[in-house]
Amino acid sequence: MSVITIERKVLEKNDAIAARNRQLFAEARLFAVNVVSSPGAGKTSLLEQTIHRLKGRVRVSVVEGDVQTDLDAQRVASYGAPVVQIVTNGGCHLEAPLVRDALGSLDLAQTDLLVIENVGNLVCPANYDLGEAMKVVVLSTTEGDDKPLKYPAMFRNASVLVVNKIDLLPYLPCDIGALIRNAHQINPALRVFQVSCTTGAGLDDWCSWLAAQVAAVRA
Amino acid sequence: MSVITIERKVLEKNDAIAARNRQLFAEARLFAVNVVSSPGAGKTSLLEQTIHRLKGRVRVSVVEGDVQTDLDAQRVASYGAPVVQIVTNGGCHLEAPLVRDALGSLDLAQTDLLVIENVGNLVCPANYDLGEAMKVVVLSTTEGDDKPLKYPAMFRNASVLVVNKIDLLPYLPCDIGALIRNAHQINPALRVFQVSCTTGAGLDDWCSWLAAQVAAVRA
Repeated sequence: MSVITIERKVLEKNDAIAARNRQLFAEARLFAVNVVSSPGAGKTSLLEQTIHRLKGRVRVSVVEGDVQTDLDAQRVASYGAPVVQIVTNGGCHLEAPLVRDALGSLDLAQTDLLVIENVGNLVCPANYDLGEAMKVVVLSTTEGDDKPLKYPAMFRNASVLVVNKIDLLPYLPCDIGALIRNAHQINPALRVFQVSCTTGAGLDDWCSWLAAQVAAVRA
Repeated sequence: MSVITIERKVLEKNDAIAARNRQLFAEARLFAVNVVSSPGAGKTSLLEQTIHRLKGRVRVSVVEGDVQTDLDAQRVASYGAPVVQIVTNGGCHLEAPLVRDALGSLDLAQTDLLVIENVGNLVCPANYDLGEAMKVVVLSTTEGDDKPLKYPAMFRNASVLVVNKIDLLPYLPCDIGALIRNAHQINPALRVFQVSCTTGAGLDDWCSWLAAQVAAVRA
């Protein structure tokens, strides 16, 4: 029981700092998303394609979370966006204080869209508010259509589902209709985009939607 | 700091019970593996194919760990193996006491190979000993060749790497040579199998190796 108490205190402290992050984002009039997924679902590829497509229209800054290495930050930096890498050294999720510390290295006043790429983990990041406007869960078709039922917290707490790697559907047993039905069974309000970062399919819709969210925050 | 202390106590208690599980497995002369991976890497598919191929030669029992649902236990049961489902209700990994409790529903004296399928999570299960002889990490080609570097603890603590979904390599940017080099950079002793649960490629080698481990324990 003591563990549960400690855990609750950790969450309370996290939520207080997340609220301060959210206040910072509101003052800077930026739209912040917390992008979550399993390892290898394609968060970084989606981010690369998003930065590329929004160039000249939306100023994107990035906080990269990884258990180890700065490989993802290097990838994102090569697309020209300001990026800060958080290495958790074994930690399985980002917490609000880590994000707060990372923000010191970014110019929020010059940011329209802040993308926080969480650690690849479909379980633990579900429970941690970082101050984002919404969580975006990326699920790749290769993971199978049952995943929303098996990892419900993430799909319940997210506002958007990006189904990635739709170009691989011909080679997979994945039923994308069932995948989306399963996701909506957990969270009927989930907004769904179907994309392929390899072929580019669906990315214009996703980017238009993001640009509209940014415009709404800055209006 | 108090969180770290509690965490250490949790791990100490876990390890004591894991040692008792290991003793039970030794007394039953069974070979126990703890199978870990990201969500959707194909742990359950590998298990189905393994049970099917070892039928009549090796008696397999299964402990299924999932955050939610008993979908995996249903799949495994349909292949004719005794199976117990542990639903963690949001918990991100299995712990030794959960496995100990599950063992009460299995006949260890009638088991040659015990497969413990962990929760789909490439981070947290790395740190928890369940009493297994070894951890087997399953990585699918769709997750990308950089994953051993980005999630090193799992690859360091595993003895075997099963690279799954090699049938999809023609459609992916994954370099399997780089994947295996990255895995061996983290853990030079890692035994590697390349398989496809869809085409059956590599599964005979994997099953022969498993059968040899079982024979060694029962010798």
